[in-house]
Amino acid sequence: MISVSPVEGLPEIGEGDDLAALIAERADLADGDVLVVAQKAVSKAEGRVVWLADVEPSERARELAGREDARRHEVILRESSRIVRSRPPLVISETRHGFVCASAGVDSSNAAGPETVVLLPLDPDASAARLRERLLELTGAEVGVIVSDSFGRPWRQGTTDVAIGLAGIRPLNDLKGTRDRAGYELHATVIAVADELAGAAELVLGKVDGVPAAVIRGVDARGEGSARELVMPAERDLFR
Amino acid sequence: MISVSPVEGLPEIGEGDDLAALIAERADLADGDVLVVAQKAVSKAEGRVVWLADVEPSERARELAGREDARRHEVILRESSRIVRSRPPLVISETRHGFVCASAGVDSSNAAGPETVVLLPLDPDASAARLRERLLELTGAEVGVIVSDSFGRPWRQGTTDVAIGLAGIRPLNDLKGTRDRAGYELHATVIAVADELAGAAELVLGKVDGVPAAVIRGVDARGEGSARELVMPAERDLFR
Repeated sequence: MISVSPVEGLPEIGEGDDLAALIAERADLADGDVLVVAQKAVSKAEGRVVWLADVEPSERARELAGREDARRHEVILRESSRIVRSRPPLVISETRHGFVCASAGVDSSNAAGPETVVLLPLDPDASAARLRERLLELTGAEVGVIVSDSFGRPWRQGTTDVAIGLAGIRPLNDLKGTRDRAGYELHATVIAVADELAGAAELVLGKVDGVPAAVIRGVDARGEGSARELVMPAERDLFR
Repeated sequence: MISVSPVEGLPEIGEGDDLAALIAERADLADGDVLVVAQKAVSKAEGRVVWLADVEPSERARELAGREDARRHEVILRESSRIVRSRPPLVISETRHGFVCASAGVDSSNAAGPETVVLLPLDPDASAARLRERLLELTGAEVGVIVSDSFGRPWRQGTTDVAIGLAGIRPLNDLKGTRDRAGYELHATVIAVADELAGAAELVLGKVDGVPAAVIRGVDARGEGSARELVMPAERDLFR
């Protein structure tokens, strides 16, 4: 059995907050647990917040924004290495980390105020690793950490939470070479375990009532890796 | 807290098996639980198995198959309404239900034998509804049912399980109009809860050791709907 428990009672997170300490005070962590933290909380603690008043939109940002605030689209352009699709004001782009998602992960909901936007962490794996180390220091527990964000998917409605950063976790479970109980070898079966863990955590996170973290117990996902392994390599990608 | 528990000890499923009864004997079901059943078990119980010896491949199937068995690709073509991308032997297509996935959901791993393939249920929502009704009859519990399958995603490595059929479940949670705790309205936030539930179940399903069902407790996803709501409408789809 797996359990997924929300970390409740966290305050609104601001720059410089010791997020690991705030979580450690409210969660009972044990070795092997997976802590999933919403990207917005991590980004805010890291000060990845931009005041729109400081942003001068380019012509390209105005085109992409349509009737919406072009300053936000300017930030999206700065966070993008490549625009994949656009239909103003919607932009799907590749972030500098290699993730393909809406608005380069730039978020205005639940930000520090109406005139701010929140960016993805500069290096979400490093953010996860820092949380993991600090939690070990504070609690003695060796936990895996996932930084999650809500991504849309082509062809399917609605977002699911996925892993954009991780530490102490094996992101993929490659079943190639294993056999099913009928004795047949499984081919091409690689499961994005870290994304399923992020999605499972979302079920208790609550965008509205400010629960930005959850603890998953009972899954053995221990290992090493990077959330960048969850990005399809260019040569295997039929949708570039 | 949410719990996700595997339904253990199920036998290999064959055509005509009373899958709901086999599950009811092995799971403790309560009102509001969500039962997730892997598509392959549902399809096998429904006899959606094709013997490749009965299939004559067309020229198009031979082209798509490359060096692989063109009879399997002939089945994929028959299950597809449209080929979205192909690079032999890989085919991404739209199924007759509207799902976009690899091989039109035609599965050869863990099938009834090396010379057979398993197709998606004809109407996976109806499959879920029948399981739900039969479980109510057998156990008295009003459960939600999801029929799940492992889908790949553009740009991301690995599969995650998603809902291809459902009953007694609200597939999407639309937060539009709700406010976060800073008082700002959430826009464009629709969460694919049924897909996250399917992914959470996958974490205990086990492709290798034959656990094709899981029970999720503690999520209030009760409602009405269809897995087809999880398909992006053509007019909103930037990737058609």
